[in-house]
Amino acid sequence: MNLTYHMPVKVIAGRDCIRENAALMCSLGGKALIVTGKNSAKRCGALDDVIGALTQEGRGYAVFDEVMANPTIECVYDGAAMARREGVDFIVAIGGGSPMDAAKVIALLACADVPRETLFSGQYGSRALPMALVPTTAGTGSEVTPYAVLTNHEAKTKKSVSSPMIFPKFAFLDASYMMSLPMKSTINTAIDALSHAVEGMLTVRANPMSDLFAGQSIRDIIACFGALQRGSLTFEERETLLYASMLAGVVIAQTGTTVVHPMGYPLTYYKGLDHGRANGLLLGVFLEFVRQRAPERVQKVLGCAGISTVGELDAMLGSLLKEKERLTPQEIEQYAQVAAKTKNVANSCVAPTYEEIVQMYRQSLGAK
Amino acid sequence: MNLTYHMPVKVIAGRDCIRENAALMCSLGGKALIVTGKNSAKRCGALDDVIGALTQEGRGYAVFDEVMANPTIECVYDGAAMARREGVDFIVAIGGGSPMDAAKVIALLACADVPRETLFSGQYGSRALPMALVPTTAGTGSEVTPYAVLTNHEAKTKKSVSSPMIFPKFAFLDASYMMSLPMKSTINTAIDALSHAVEGMLTVRANPMSDLFAGQSIRDIIACFGALQRGSLTFEERETLLYASMLAGVVIAQTGTTVVHPMGYPLTYYKGLDHGRANGLLLGVFLEFVRQRAPERVQKVLGCAGISTVGELDAMLGSLLKEKERLTPQEIEQYAQVAAKTKNVANSCVAPTYEEIVQMYRQSLGAK
Repeated sequence: MNLTYHMPVKVIAGRDCIRENAALMCSLGGKALIVTGKNSAKRCGALDDVIGALTQEGRGYAVFDEVMANPTIECVYDGAAMARREGVDFIVAIGGGSPMDAAKVIALLACADVPRETLFSGQYGSRALPMALVPTTAGTGSEVTPYAVLTNHEAKTKKSVSSPMIFPKFAFLDASYMMSLPMKSTINTAIDALSHAVEGMLTVRANPMSDLFAGQSIRDIIACFGALQRGSLTFEERETLLYASMLAGVVIAQTGTTVVHPMGYPLTYYKGLDHGRANGLLLGVFLEFVRQRAPERVQKVLGCAGISTVGELDAMLGSLLKEKERLTPQEIEQYAQVAAKTKNVANSCVAPTYEEIVQMYRQSLGAK
Repeated sequence: MNLTYHMPVKVIAGRDCIRENAALMCSLGGKALIVTGKNSAKRCGALDDVIGALTQEGRGYAVFDEVMANPTIECVYDGAAMARREGVDFIVAIGGGSPMDAAKVIALLACADVPRETLFSGQYGSRALPMALVPTTAGTGSEVTPYAVLTNHEAKTKKSVSSPMIFPKFAFLDASYMMSLPMKSTINTAIDALSHAVEGMLTVRANPMSDLFAGQSIRDIIACFGALQRGSLTFEERETLLYASMLAGVVIAQTGTTVVHPMGYPLTYYKGLDHGRANGLLLGVFLEFVRQRAPERVQKVLGCAGISTVGELDAMLGSLLKEKERLTPQEIEQYAQVAAKTKNVANSCVAPTYEEIVQMYRQSLGAK
């Protein structure tokens, strides 16, 4: 049993957990940069709760609310410039994966001058600003990972910044912020989390501990599928999904992801598909691909889900994803070339060739 | 779902993990204090591996090998004095719970002048020396907890030092070091780990995440009971127990323990019983006590163990513990008075009164 496990984030979950842990959040410093998007953090009440906690504890703050979906390199450099200008010493990020991921890179760039050309090189300074992350969707798991994904226009895809320095100090999980999340986002993010847990089990780095988290995450998400199909979730179901997405984040913090992720990135970059949806469209074909060479791995995943066949799981996903997008043969070749060059290929427990990646795209998204 | 989870230790497990991660271990500083007991670290090969890693990376070291079983307050102050005298900047501890726990307090005392009178008060400095812990038994889980238990002659029992500062940086788990561990120690430490997992599930702080770890730990330890009864373990079984004891450590790092622990401490202090054995002698009666008021909690534990009744589990424990020690009524009253005053009473999911503690002692260890 060779195993490496590291997940230093302190996770605090429960209704009103920010209000009840204001002092803990504010132990991070004297002045915060709140990193968020334009709207959702305000609408869901999380921004008010964070500002309330900071004010109650006598902390100053500045707000950087310019994070867009699939944040750009420009965005994080802008945020870091604001962090320096305002002299903040910690960061509170509120949002889905986009604001949380942007915040992690802002935390790095606020402490070190990293040229844009080497942002994805792994060479950073010796520290990042400490962070508290507040997810407002249940999908990314970013609150417990050392990763941040940005849009890289040069590579025409999304790329990861990865460093143990960007593990947040705290993750505050309050499902209240998800109660008014539209059903489409709820479904896409739930599928994102499921994809993390399933992919984690299908990496070369999967180990008994990551599988323990992944198994529970899969069970919990599958248990919510009925509610997702009906289109209505209770607070408890929202909490279950939030918990499961955090567990799936712990999984990928250990294992990384499979080729499903880089196969999905061009769907987001070129076609504007939501990240979770992109993964969901490809998960079934990848499971079937792995099943042919390593059936025991796939059986383990299906066992956690309480499902007998890949087809069954794919049908369940299909019932949520509805009509699939279609790609031309040219698009498939272009996307496959990008995906085939990533480290995720070798991180998959069965590594696909370029041709096999093409084949998977065709099976899922080729012209009918 | 209210939940707090924190376990920042990086766990590295596998045969030869110290040799293969020498640079990581040595990233902690320039000169190490190796904290260990008189013999076992030398016999099992762990000390050679640690010294080899330090030497290979050009690090200096001093050895403090004076940690006895159930270490005293004097011992940790001596160790801290040596740490200061030698100017070390990190600690590598090798051993069972005693050297690891002593090392944690030495790491605190090396950085702050804490008067002996306030050692258990929770008031320490702002940091501890960073630590790498190398367990040579599979029981304590100390390598992943923020606790250290010392013998307190003033209170005539064992008491805990508890602080997030004494979470180690690294835990190196190599079951090779356990291959020549005597069967009696193997059994006692396995029961210690089982007790942590079971007790964790029976605390007021148990949560879905601690239960996830506890359930796996219980399953794994029970799976090794046959080998423990036979008195012969393979490397893989040793690894399973080491993994399970670490998981159980993660559990109690979240939940703390129940009244079983302070009930066991006087058995160690006055009667010299091994800590794991002391817990094992009391676990069955505590499970039966909880079952009468909160049967669903106990059912969950038994479900993880794949067992139907408390009696069955108690019989399995009995087959390993053999003949029980016996206490006089006076001893029982004396021990119960100590146990009844501890915080662990309120941390138990069903809190026993003094009389109920007396009753549990009687049922397990009273005169026949």
